[in-house]
Amino acid sequence: MRGLMQDSPLTIDTIFRHAEQHYGDVPIVTNGPKGVTRSTYGEWADRTRRLGGVLDTLGISADGRVGTFGWNSQRHLELYFAVPCTGRVLHTLNIRLFPEQLTYIANHAEDEVVFVDRSVFGLFWPLVDAMTTVRHVVVMEDGGDAELPDDPRISDYETLLAAASPVEFDVRDEGLAASMCYTSGTTGNPKGVVYSHRSTVLHTMAALSPNAFGLSVRDVAMPVVPMFHANAWGIAQAAPAAGAALVFPGPMMQPENLAKLIVDEGVTFTAGVPTIWQGMLPFLAGTPHKLREIGCGGSAVPKALSEAYREQVGIPILQAWGMTETSPVASSGVLPRRLEDADDDTKATERARAGIPLFGVEARIVDADTLEPQAWDDTATGELQVRGPWCAKEYYNPDAGAVLSTDDGWMKTGDVAAMDSYGSIRIADRTKDLIKSGGEWISSVDLENAIMSHPKVAEAAVVGIPHPKWDERPLACVVVKPGETLTEEEVLQHLKPLVAKWWMPEAVEFIDEVPKTSVGKFSKKDLRAKFAEYELKS
Amino acid sequence: MRGLMQDSPLTIDTIFRHAEQHYGDVPIVTNGPKGVTRSTYGEWADRTRRLGGVLDTLGISADGRVGTFGWNSQRHLELYFAVPCTGRVLHTLNIRLFPEQLTYIANHAEDEVVFVDRSVFGLFWPLVDAMTTVRHVVVMEDGGDAELPDDPRISDYETLLAAASPVEFDVRDEGLAASMCYTSGTTGNPKGVVYSHRSTVLHTMAALSPNAFGLSVRDVAMPVVPMFHANAWGIAQAAPAAGAALVFPGPMMQPENLAKLIVDEGVTFTAGVPTIWQGMLPFLAGTPHKLREIGCGGSAVPKALSEAYREQVGIPILQAWGMTETSPVASSGVLPRRLEDADDDTKATERARAGIPLFGVEARIVDADTLEPQAWDDTATGELQVRGPWCAKEYYNPDAGAVLSTDDGWMKTGDVAAMDSYGSIRIADRTKDLIKSGGEWISSVDLENAIMSHPKVAEAAVVGIPHPKWDERPLACVVVKPGETLTEEEVLQHLKPLVAKWWMPEAVEFIDEVPKTSVGKFSKKDLRAKFAEYELKS
Repeated sequence: MRGLMQDSPLTIDTIFRHAEQHYGDVPIVTNGPKGVTRSTYGEWADRTRRLGGVLDTLGISADGRVGTFGWNSQRHLELYFAVPCTGRVLHTLNIRLFPEQLTYIANHAEDEVVFVDRSVFGLFWPLVDAMTTVRHVVVMEDGGDAELPDDPRISDYETLLAAASPVEFDVRDEGLAASMCYTSGTTGNPKGVVYSHRSTVLHTMAALSPNAFGLSVRDVAMPVVPMFHANAWGIAQAAPAAGAALVFPGPMMQPENLAKLIVDEGVTFTAGVPTIWQGMLPFLAGTPHKLREIGCGGSAVPKALSEAYREQVGIPILQAWGMTETSPVASSGVLPRRLEDADDDTKATERARAGIPLFGVEARIVDADTLEPQAWDDTATGELQVRGPWCAKEYYNPDAGAVLSTDDGWMKTGDVAAMDSYGSIRIADRTKDLIKSGGEWISSVDLENAIMSHPKVAEAAVVGIPHPKWDERPLACVVVKPGETLTEEEVLQHLKPLVAKWWMPEAVEFIDEVPKTSVGKFSKKDLRAKFAEYELKS
Repeated sequence: MRGLMQDSPLTIDTIFRHAEQHYGDVPIVTNGPKGVTRSTYGEWADRTRRLGGVLDTLGISADGRVGTFGWNSQRHLELYFAVPCTGRVLHTLNIRLFPEQLTYIANHAEDEVVFVDRSVFGLFWPLVDAMTTVRHVVVMEDGGDAELPDDPRISDYETLLAAASPVEFDVRDEGLAASMCYTSGTTGNPKGVVYSHRSTVLHTMAALSPNAFGLSVRDVAMPVVPMFHANAWGIAQAAPAAGAALVFPGPMMQPENLAKLIVDEGVTFTAGVPTIWQGMLPFLAGTPHKLREIGCGGSAVPKALSEAYREQVGIPILQAWGMTETSPVASSGVLPRRLEDADDDTKATERARAGIPLFGVEARIVDADTLEPQAWDDTATGELQVRGPWCAKEYYNPDAGAVLSTDDGWMKTGDVAAMDSYGSIRIADRTKDLIKSGGEWISSVDLENAIMSHPKVAEAAVVGIPHPKWDERPLACVVVKPGETLTEEEVLQHLKPLVAKWWMPEAVEFIDEVPKTSVGKFSKKDLRAKFAEYELKS
């Protein structure tokens, strides 16, 4: 027997129309070097419909990929909607990627146009000729002062918008691609995750629930998490769906600017990586504010940081866990009912967990090879695997071997976790080969390959070392070839042209040999143990 | 280009597993004449899996309809999940329906089994022989004392459960029917709405959002709205999905018992029809409680009632609007941001609106015949029409003419509404033919037909008159045949065997003729105007 309900598709234009029709007076604020720009969902909606017309004018294909390269801003939000609501696919480029990665992913996604903030135009423009499918570069004036070359590919966002006609949005197929985000952390080439309209709408609804972010018409939401990260953790869609006011930091990402914005604009909800909150603590401590919740993810939230916020800012940090492949929010460390009257330390320990999957996501821990389930006793560990409508099934045209799904249909996260008897997740060990610095992945394997390209290096292994500001920074462990000598300075000089500046190892240690596992692989676990007490010079 | 996300279906077993895995320690409490019974989601989950086994044991078909006839209780919640999670279809029978309606809908839905609370067994059993498809009657001991006949069709819930084995739940098709609810208010026979797994899960997620009920692990939710009303307004699914504790009133529906339960169990969220809150006000006023929100729907919430709650209980009532055909929650009168600092009266007026559609539902007002859109100026009115994944497309095997959808795919609500410039709905006039008494529909047309069956009656029209306790009560306007005489008492005596006791007109007025519209239909509008100041003897 079938249900007899309407066949209404879950498409992003329903979010758009909801905000357009019901929250026209709700503010959207974007910060910039000349102060804040004030707008509303009403103006945003009108501009977004005209941006749809711009995409037509530029001749972007019916399902063409539209790249963005910019900060968090109202214009970025216009792109977040105009692109998928006209059937095209939003591709947010991470402005912090190494140039070769950027050109790789723009070519892999076949971006036809890239919308670039003027303040980061200088990072982007040198790559444009290597991006073989990019026919247009649209510059968004955000107060940046980059010189703009005289090039027919370049046009101005506001000029295009002023000349464009508004379009109707009516996507009728929830399975269509809506947006793409590449995950650059793992070994090999960056991998593209393709979100559907359906997955995005469901992720939005999950983000709205109070066990996650709980956004409502009463909120003023400020996503500090960059909009070039997956769906800006859902806030970019959840705020319009809830009628929450939005505050965008623009390029003004310095902690003091962010803190001032929170206070001045009456921000009630914000979210970002631990590094951000670390930096902002001195500016928020003891300052009157209206914050009700601070969402934090991307890396594990140190218990001490959350406790410092509870004590000095008045609210603990809410940890959320997820990854690009999970849209990204998959679980939250919301305090369970049974611990409501527990002591502060017990609560803080609980809050430091990745926590309970959001309703809609199911999680398990298994032996990664045999898929044997592991006990939920908070001691046994296994690969964390998830399933649900906003978990990715496969990568976009992946390299051979980049398999995301198990044979029985669960998504392999690559994280190693324990789960307690309530199914609360504790990430025990991140994917062996990754280092997370300031919320961004660094591939240790790529770094190792670069180091090992030095003629005097026999082998090299890179591990993440805890860092007070960046959460983790890479430590290079280098074995010099017999009879040779090598200094830290020589290794770093060798790397300079090969990797992004922020990938540069924080230190180089020379060792006799890299410890190996029984099958001859580098044993990162042993290396991490060896350097567990390592003190970085910072 | 397609999205590359998992094909995870939106099925009710995902709600079940979420509660089972993560909220095993969260309390479920059911009240009864001998006091409260305490349980947990863990116990509930185990019992629900075994109830799935009971359905197998009873030989219920793969998509068989399973009727329920009872109060709000943990056992009813077990049925809410065991039935759809085994692929069967839950059919909640409204215990307040007139016997002929009950047998009609049980036969129309082809219920194979009915689960009956012992306290209402006496209402049900006389009908069982007329329910031609019902093979089993399972009695749930709720402290009632109805005599149970010696009949092979009757079995005991707990006995069956104790003997049953738990079953796996794995519904893979979100389009399957999950449950049915009949709407008995409109003219003609009751009409069945068939919810799908998909519509139920999406309605659940919408109910979780803070612009609706905002349930979380921090809540203790008490649905006063009967579980034989549509999905108990989503709370029956939203609480398990959120990990909110649940408190069920059982048969103890007296205002003083409900108020005591709210205080004793620390209820934070509750919902029901206006009549309930009217009755409970004296018991809640000035009493310490933990309520954060009171949801109200089914009838318009009188502004005075909401204000009395704000003043005497400390929180205003949140009005929600919807109907059986919308799962039911479709909009909420949540206060918009721009009125946060408005005066109390302005806020109260705004809260009295049906409000803004929940994200996922779209609303419009149109000329019911031409579908011409009406202005959103809060003055123009039109038929309210809605669309969205939890709005019904059609009725189940309807009588000829019972059409729910417009040609362009919107659902006709039958309500007449105005919308302001923010798209906030104000119900201007309920469907002409309906009277809502204590949250239940009375069909004026059916009543009229019954009255007009009296030999001395020329014609009769019934309209709803405001009533302080029941919101509305029927007033019968009777035209006596020329040369005849008739008394109120004779009319009521005539009706007694024909309609349910609570359908009986509150008063009978004798008039010279029923005012007619230009096309010769009864003009209820004119009649309502004529009796606008009518004072019921109550």
